[in-house]
Amino acid sequence: MKLLRYGAPGAERPGLLDAEGRIRDLSDHVADIGPDTLAPDALKSLAALDPASLPAVEGDPRIGVPVSRIGKLVAIGLNFSDHAAESNLPIPEEPIIFMKATSSITGPNDEVVIPRGSKKTDWEVELGVVIGKRASYVTVDDALDHVAGFCVVNDVSEREYQIERGGTWDKGKGCDTFGPIGPWLVTRDEIADVQALGMWLDVNGERRQTGTTAKMIFDVKTLVSYISEFMTLEPGDVITTGTPPGVGMGLKPEAVFLKAGDVMELGIEGLGQQRQQCVAWTARG
Amino acid sequence: MKLLRYGAPGAERPGLLDAEGRIRDLSDHVADIGPDTLAPDALKSLAALDPASLPAVEGDPRIGVPVSRIGKLVAIGLNFSDHAAESNLPIPEEPIIFMKATSSITGPNDEVVIPRGSKKTDWEVELGVVIGKRASYVTVDDALDHVAGFCVVNDVSEREYQIERGGTWDKGKGCDTFGPIGPWLVTRDEIADVQALGMWLDVNGERRQTGTTAKMIFDVKTLVSYISEFMTLEPGDVITTGTPPGVGMGLKPEAVFLKAGDVMELGIEGLGQQRQQCVAWTARG
Repeated sequence: MKLLRYGAPGAERPGLLDAEGRIRDLSDHVADIGPDTLAPDALKSLAALDPASLPAVEGDPRIGVPVSRIGKLVAIGLNFSDHAAESNLPIPEEPIIFMKATSSITGPNDEVVIPRGSKKTDWEVELGVVIGKRASYVTVDDALDHVAGFCVVNDVSEREYQIERGGTWDKGKGCDTFGPIGPWLVTRDEIADVQALGMWLDVNGERRQTGTTAKMIFDVKTLVSYISEFMTLEPGDVITTGTPPGVGMGLKPEAVFLKAGDVMELGIEGLGQQRQQCVAWTARG
Repeated sequence: MKLLRYGAPGAERPGLLDAEGRIRDLSDHVADIGPDTLAPDALKSLAALDPASLPAVEGDPRIGVPVSRIGKLVAIGLNFSDHAAESNLPIPEEPIIFMKATSSITGPNDEVVIPRGSKKTDWEVELGVVIGKRASYVTVDDALDHVAGFCVVNDVSEREYQIERGGTWDKGKGCDTFGPIGPWLVTRDEIADVQALGMWLDVNGERRQTGTTAKMIFDVKTLVSYISEFMTLEPGDVITTGTPPGVGMGLKPEAVFLKAGDVMELGIEGLGQQRQQCVAWTARG
């Protein structure tokens, strides 16, 4: 199943994508796609519906974040062997955890705001893992039972804030609009092997990142188990699992960063794609 | 005003503490103390009530976290000059930001769980700042207008996870029960000078931390302004602003850490006090 939320920001309605790629409205069956909707039994009820019986949505509405009320956005650093090599950094001995502020979360095709004065805003296509069932000290073998599904995440990052401003990476990872998620939450049953998915990201039509989840140093089930030793993962929490090579900071002969007007397009095999236009910061009300 | 939430976990009711130290129930006036209750106008409505007209609460109920639905728990590291000296670390040139998982948040007198296998669980009394009005790129001069009030936070920390397990500090800061907050949200008008409050923490009746918010390297208004450049602070977000000297990691002749059965008591002048008993980890359902 490909679950989604569509409509204006803050007023999204629940839906799913049918086999023909049409949005079908789920409002008669669930109020929203949120933490409660992700429990195994709740997902089973939705999967039992005949998509053809659901109202088809006309037009081309905005797509929102596929899950509402995400409690935590936990992120993993340097999790691709080829990206670690590109960054001239050793392969981590255990997963690197950092946190993206939940206020950074935005729809998959919404604008990305370059922070005021930022010179080093960068892109990172990543596999997102959506928790469906509470996970505390779960074993690697049991870990995937706690996962509702997968999605695309752009782990937008300001490298100066992240690396040159003192302290942890969080400072450069949680700016507003730095967490595009979606377009869909693709339930686990639809993905035969989550460790064999192609990943890509273009900037202004030029391919910048090409990768595969096969190159993850720590695979999804290991990450869920590992994080669950340090904090309880709750339904609706999202883990973003690290990026393949090709980020702007690592480009040769010199780094390239985002500026207003640039367009990022990115996707993961089976999980859909995102498109964000970068805009300059302006004061909001 | 001293706002609070009382009752069983997940079923707290809104209340306030009257001048005699009695809890008065606010259920007839607000459904909960949450992000919406913290707006300046909403606080003004509550302040207009005569506490004597509110039902007095009998008995000695559990006190919960004073604000529900905290979206972000943003933390500041090494923010006391005397604590930096104790840690043999240089005074930071700009604030160090890290994030505590919101799943770590717990009531001020609830048990603190020593994580499974943990050897270095430690204490940190801190001043918490509760945001009342959205803050994005606010100036230092305007910053306090965005603050609803203050509270006590225990920034419980696992030092091995924080420092020896790779990556950012977040790994040792977000364990379940590592974020006791309360007992009260004390509104800003009640605190004449937030930079002149005594702070203390005892373990098993022995004084471990003694400090004052006067020793903060970056004061509250500077922190609110600074963080608001990296992420929007939303109503209900809490900033915990760093700890004075006397943490277990820094004790001489050798470090002391928490074990099951230990009792932490801590407080800040005008903001009340907390008491947590440490318990061993056991599997929860």
